Amino acid sequence: MAIALGGNQYGKAEVRLVRVDRDGKRHRVTDLNVSVALSGDLTSTHLTGDNSKVLPTDTQKNTVYAFARDGVGEAEAFGLRLGEHFVRSQKSIHGARIDFEQYSWDRIEDRPHSFSRNGSATRTATVTWFEDGAHVVSGLSGLTVMNTTDSEFWGYIKDGYTTLAETTDRILATDVNARWLHHTHPTDWAESFEQAKHDLLTAFAETHSLSLQQTLYAMGQRVLDKQPGIAEIRLSMPNKHHFLVDLAPFGLDNPNEVFFAADRPYGLIEGTVRRDDLPEQNSAW
Amino acid sequence: MAIALGGNQYGKAEVRLVRVDRDGKRHRVTDLNVSVALSGDLTSTHLTGDNSKVLPTDTQKNTVYAFARDGVGEAEAFGLRLGEHFVRSQKSIHGARIDFEQYSWDRIEDRPHSFSRNGSATRTATVTWFEDGAHVVSGLSGLTVMNTTDSEFWGYIKDGYTTLAETTDRILATDVNARWLHHTHPTDWAESFEQAKHDLLTAFAETHSLSLQQTLYAMGQRVLDKQPGIAEIRLSMPNKHHFLVDLAPFGLDNPNEVFFAADRPYGLIEGTVRRDDLPEQNSAW
Amino acid sequence: MAIALGGNQYGKAEVRLVRVDRDGKRHRVTDLNVSVALSGDLTSTHLTGDNSKVLPTDTQKNTVYAFARDGVGEAEAFGLRLGEHFVRSQKSIHGARIDFEQYSWDRIEDRPHSFSRNGSATRTATVTWFEDGAHVVSGLSGLTVMNTTDSEFWGYIKDGYTTLAETTDRILATDVNARWLHHTHPTDWAESFEQAKHDLLTAFAETHSLSLQQTLYAMGQRVLDKQPGIAEIRLSMPNKHHFLVDLAPFGLDNPNEVFFAADRPYGLIEGTVRRDDLPEQNSAW
Amino acid sequence: MAIALGGNQYGKAEVRLVRVDRDGKRHRVTDLNVSVALSGDLTSTHLTGDNSKVLPTDTQKNTVYAFARDGVGEAEAFGLRLGEHFVRSQKSIHGARIDFEQYSWDRIEDRPHSFSRNGSATRTATVTWFEDGAHVVSGLSGLTVMNTTDSEFWGYIKDGYTTLAETTDRILATDVNARWLHHTHPTDWAESFEQAKHDLLTAFAETHSLSLQQTLYAMGQRVLDKQPGIAEIRLSMPNKHHFLVDLAPFGLDNPNEVFFAADRPYGLIEGTVRRDDLPEQNSAW
Repeated sequence: MAIALGGNQYGKAEVRLVRVDRDGKRHRVTDLNVSVALSGDLTSTHLTGDNSKVLPTDTQKNTVYAFARDGVGEAEAFGLRLGEHFVRSQKSIHGARIDFEQYSWDRIEDRPHSFSRNGSATRTATVTWFEDGAHVVSGLSGLTVMNTTDSEFWGYIKDGYTTLAETTDRILATDVNARWLHHTHPTDWAESFEQAKHDLLTAFAETHSLSLQQTLYAMGQRVLDKQPGIAEIRLSMPNKHHFLVDLAPFGLDNPNEVFFAADRPYGLIEGTVRRDDLPEQNSAW
Repeated sequence: MAIALGGNQYGKAEVRLVRVDRDGKRHRVTDLNVSVALSGDLTSTHLTGDNSKVLPTDTQKNTVYAFARDGVGEAEAFGLRLGEHFVRSQKSIHGARIDFEQYSWDRIEDRPHSFSRNGSATRTATVTWFEDGAHVVSGLSGLTVMNTTDSEFWGYIKDGYTTLAETTDRILATDVNARWLHHTHPTDWAESFEQAKHDLLTAFAETHSLSLQQTLYAMGQRVLDKQPGIAEIRLSMPNKHHFLVDLAPFGLDNPNEVFFAADRPYGLIEGTVRRDDLPEQNSAW
Repeated sequence: MAIALGGNQYGKAEVRLVRVDRDGKRHRVTDLNVSVALSGDLTSTHLTGDNSKVLPTDTQKNTVYAFARDGVGEAEAFGLRLGEHFVRSQKSIHGARIDFEQYSWDRIEDRPHSFSRNGSATRTATVTWFEDGAHVVSGLSGLTVMNTTDSEFWGYIKDGYTTLAETTDRILATDVNARWLHHTHPTDWAESFEQAKHDLLTAFAETHSLSLQQTLYAMGQRVLDKQPGIAEIRLSMPNKHHFLVDLAPFGLDNPNEVFFAADRPYGLIEGTVRRDDLPEQNSAW
Repeated sequence: MAIALGGNQYGKAEVRLVRVDRDGKRHRVTDLNVSVALSGDLTSTHLTGDNSKVLPTDTQKNTVYAFARDGVGEAEAFGLRLGEHFVRSQKSIHGARIDFEQYSWDRIEDRPHSFSRNGSATRTATVTWFEDGAHVVSGLSGLTVMNTTDSEFWGYIKDGYTTLAETTDRILATDVNARWLHHTHPTDWAESFEQAKHDLLTAFAETHSLSLQQTLYAMGQRVLDKQPGIAEIRLSMPNKHHFLVDLAPFGLDNPNEVFFAADRPYGLIEGTVRRDDLPEQNSAW
């Protein structure tokens, strides 16, 4: 049996780029963590160490910074510029994947050049550029949310390993990690992101939940309902367990008020909501 | 030379307590990480394993949850209740230290029982209870702030190891970690905290900085100026370096716009601002 | 366009299981982090919150602990037992994925029941059980290695964004993350793992490297050469940059001796080495 | 009441230094994370931003790298060189604190220039240099150990919040964090460190434990017993709880074999063992 090179990619990961736009007195900050991964005609460097088709990761990093000179704008648009550059400018490079994490900053009391980092969630984007086109996936991670009621869990399978009691009132808490694929590009990436974030939050809040899966689906459906240009959304949501503390040994009741927030283990619910008349784009993710 | 037991303490660390106040339809959430450390007459457990003077850490944890049954309120007040309990109820326990981290949650669009975790900073508190009284230290950690201008650094010592160029316009970014000691207790701990946070943010923003030390001092001074009941504030602030990227090799200028945000190493500036007519309270920290 | 449920799975993640085998005086410790993910006929819980086909994640956790009562043995074998149980015992569950991280412990000086955790690398395993069979992937993560010479990098593409100088002697350091698919099961999973780890280490050490890709390929090829039962190996290896410090401003040379170990950004090299006459098994990974 | 500057220090933290000694064919690697903190006559930079007495943190970093040119050797000795330099060369600097974390690397199969990082514990050192002398504290962190038997816990205080059951056979696991102060300097820092690590490990293993405090004291006492030059040792040891899983609901017993390894909360035991005829050196820690 012959041994051969399979799928591969390489690039510079976690290029920390802060861009300050100083047009006028009111500064704007764009704070990104950029990761580039290139693929193509790379067999020779693997088999013999011949690097004649390798664009060094150091050069990729330089390119990110140089392209930022003209302004970054939205991560999705910046990723399209970078992806196109790598694929078009290098004969040996046939695919480029650019991943972004974006950290948002709030103004300190409307001042023109003072900012406080907003830690509530990280915006993400992934652009994949191939010779025949590009895909754009937007997303967010680390959006931690909680409903203190309107969550039930009962009617599940019981077997010989069941000890969980059914409940009609529990805390539901999760870290939303969501990524969604655009099949048409919105006119305003930032507005589209804010709309999706708003839809995730409100669908989470408004869903009387019988399972975290139901909540997940409702959240995904809401995002697709509101933005026809989004083809598919993938959600990964840990069930951050809040266990009611048994205070009976101390002569106290606990009417759903005092909870232990557990670290591990946690439930992990992962699901996709998609428009089923569109083709799957597995290379986009 | 005789070998002997020196200073010691023990306790349950990182008790994760979430308290939901359900009075009326509008829920409130208190989310705390509580650490207890007790000291006292503990020689025998160290020398012989005689535990007759040891209140188990498991019991400490239970106590935290049981005390939460009546409501938690502000961390400082909760810590005073817990500290007094441990010291007063156990003859062998002469000191109690209760440390808190508090995570804040925002309402999702003013809904009554849906929340989104606000990751912008962690509120902290430390209560130390001794037989002759108590100290309360409030604080915050992880408040990340940035000024995109109005920061200079020049006029420093040059020696044979100097390569740093002087600058009259740099980015100044830091994670504020601050703790302040109350010598009188405010009527409203939450209000006092919000005032201090506001003062830290605005003093950071308003100070035209010649050194991070100068900014640190201005921040501490502001907090003491605004609250006469605060005796002392200790600040620890990393200088989160943002290096201007040299784009000249690519034929580009860089007029203070494109930066590399470095991880390590970082400067670390630590300082105290205090009312110098008050005695130091080293056991409070 | 109709909105529908796409791919999904759910389970209990990060079940921390420590098993002490006490047969005889000489104890053995198995320390695992187990994550279960189930898939199958789960549409109803997503669309309506009907949980009648849901085996709760709490029950999955209980099952892991109960199955450990009879002994755990090697993670791969334990995963096969668990996967088969979930798929065979529940009509609605058609697939089970069990992920393991395993932490190894060394004996303290050959004592029978005292151990010190060995932090050098984490052993991993993934078992996927479907109705028509199972796949087993073994692996390791966090194996940090360094060659202080015998690494070059030159002959790469130069473009307008190139500033990197070619080198014929650099430090090569990486964290090896490797996962390999068995197409036949070894008689001894532990022995197979140790062989693979040994092969990764020695191939890393013995390869005079012209690129990290070349080293990666040599490592994968070595593993496949030595174990005919392994079909494919996937490697992800960051290039942990060690930059030579410029000491010239201080009147000193630096003959490849003093380095700055950088955090971010880093190169990231990912590649697969496989037997190309075997079918790909994408669901295994 | 006058507001004034209190205690303060500043410096460059986490300077990542890798030194390769290439004398002969057999390389040696020293891998350090170095943090410098200086104190002295620093009021003016805090009050007015006058930096004329400030040695920049960038220069401190350069000094670390430049001093490494002549060889690093043991961290303690390197720290003494650095501390003396900062205090002696700068009139405004009256104190220097140098903290080290050291990561150890094992040779890959006795090869001359290939290494694998040993993750079992981090060696630490702190050197404080003042105008009237220096202190040296050595230590280690992250040494994770476990006894699977020979640990009991009973005879403790019971109160209204007690639910813990007494036990005569439990798992005892901890991460040892230890720091010890030398009052005379050993002839070989590395040998002294290895001796102390050995003593900590064997005292942990050999102590039949009635409380983690007892084990802690035995470990500290052993280190002081074996090295007369060590004045004091401070230990911080979390009680990493391993809870026996209740398998009775599944018709199974659990004879101390299947455990849940919990994350939080954990007990935290901190204590000092010291020669009580030596003066305390609070500034050393």
